[in-house]
Amino acid sequence: MQQYFLNQVAPEIGMVITLEKDDTHHLFTVMRAKLDEKVQIVFSDQTLVLATVNVDLATLTVLEFVEKSVELPLDVTIAVGLPKSDKLEFITQKATELGVYAILAFPAKWSVTKFDAKKIIKKTARLEKIAKGAAEQSKRLLIPTVKILANLQELTDQFARYDQILVAYEAAAKSGETAAFAKKLSELEKGQKILVIFGPEGGISPQEIEQLTALGATKIGLGPRIMRAETAPLYVLSAISFYTELLH
Amino acid sequence: MQQYFLNQVAPEIGMVITLEKDDTHHLFTVMRAKLDEKVQIVFSDQTLVLATVNVDLATLTVLEFVEKSVELPLDVTIAVGLPKSDKLEFITQKATELGVYAILAFPAKWSVTKFDAKKIIKKTARLEKIAKGAAEQSKRLLIPTVKILANLQELTDQFARYDQILVAYEAAAKSGETAAFAKKLSELEKGQKILVIFGPEGGISPQEIEQLTALGATKIGLGPRIMRAETAPLYVLSAISFYTELLH
Repeated sequence: MQQYFLNQVAPEIGMVITLEKDDTHHLFTVMRAKLDEKVQIVFSDQTLVLATVNVDLATLTVLEFVEKSVELPLDVTIAVGLPKSDKLEFITQKATELGVYAILAFPAKWSVTKFDAKKIIKKTARLEKIAKGAAEQSKRLLIPTVKILANLQELTDQFARYDQILVAYEAAAKSGETAAFAKKLSELEKGQKILVIFGPEGGISPQEIEQLTALGATKIGLGPRIMRAETAPLYVLSAISFYTELLH
Repeated sequence: MQQYFLNQVAPEIGMVITLEKDDTHHLFTVMRAKLDEKVQIVFSDQTLVLATVNVDLATLTVLEFVEKSVELPLDVTIAVGLPKSDKLEFITQKATELGVYAILAFPAKWSVTKFDAKKIIKKTARLEKIAKGAAEQSKRLLIPTVKILANLQELTDQFARYDQILVAYEAAAKSGETAAFAKKLSELEKGQKILVIFGPEGGISPQEIEQLTALGATKIGLGPRIMRAETAPLYVLSAISFYTELLH
């Protein structure tokens, strides 16, 4: 069954609704939806409804409300040092599938990629579209927000918002640090907010680590193998899902 | 530091060695290694040595043996229903970074992709090269093997090799099954072999599930969000690493 997001307050049963232009095109032209076909629609307050296609093949009627719990028990925000080429697109798609709450990117000291203001706007729009598509496909109830920050300070300025801040650090892994990640996870309760920071391809610099830990971030190792910049966030999100959703 | 694999028995300290042709090109032409530069070399028995570049800028001298534990405590084999386009390349690269022991692919009932014998040979060579590159980059001690099977039976014929066989099943996740994966992991001991089976884009068919479970595979759910075919194996490998290497 197709799912779409609609940026409106939740409707009532029997109400006729029109999807956003792109989604209307997708549902009726690309997917060729037929009369009475069922579709899932998520409203801005995360209300999920089942709706059916009307005879006009352009609108839908709300059939019933659906109760479903599909979001991670923790709000996990990842912040990644700007990676090369299309890695940020990749991270956005996969992190969305894995339940991320928000994605931040920042120009790290060792980031090769730099964006000017114009490029940031264009790239952000592209990433938001990817996040929406991935959220629909993985049947989530929220679309992760995506933001490209101007510098590291914009990230540290937000530290107070989070209950816990972790930073993946290769040197921690190399020195055999294996306990901090699980320990920090065990201290969190349902609904709390966690921020996990990752470096770009070259890693996160010792100066940045010092700055982040001085402001309260905890260094974590992610095991003995070296992961690429775009793989580490997926490892962390998978581990958090496993720990909070599957391990009883 | 660069790492290369060399398909020879472990050397002795002081011995002069020559890397494989591609790796020699990579180290001396691409990376422009200089006299006395240090390189890690892994031999066929997983012996890891530190070697230095000789004055000829073409060979290396073995300096010392290095003890390192970088492999997952379990031998994890993944078997994936043949996915579309270059997803198998993607899975091979990322699963190698995440510590997979072996990768199998099989034409599932709902696989859109089909390979003839000639294509299998070509594709396998390509995947082996990707696995070698990823194993070098993530500094592993073994290169995962990659095999494309002719049919599902070739997979089930190997079931006796494994201590545990799991199959990721979306319907299990939908029905709220969340305990089997962690439970099965908790029953395994260091060094044991586990096979985890995944469907292609369309999922694994009910007939295949019946066949696999009749032969001893356990259905597992991977949480409430729907993951793409290429994401689920990465989730499982990350979760296994977290469970066996980080959670104490």
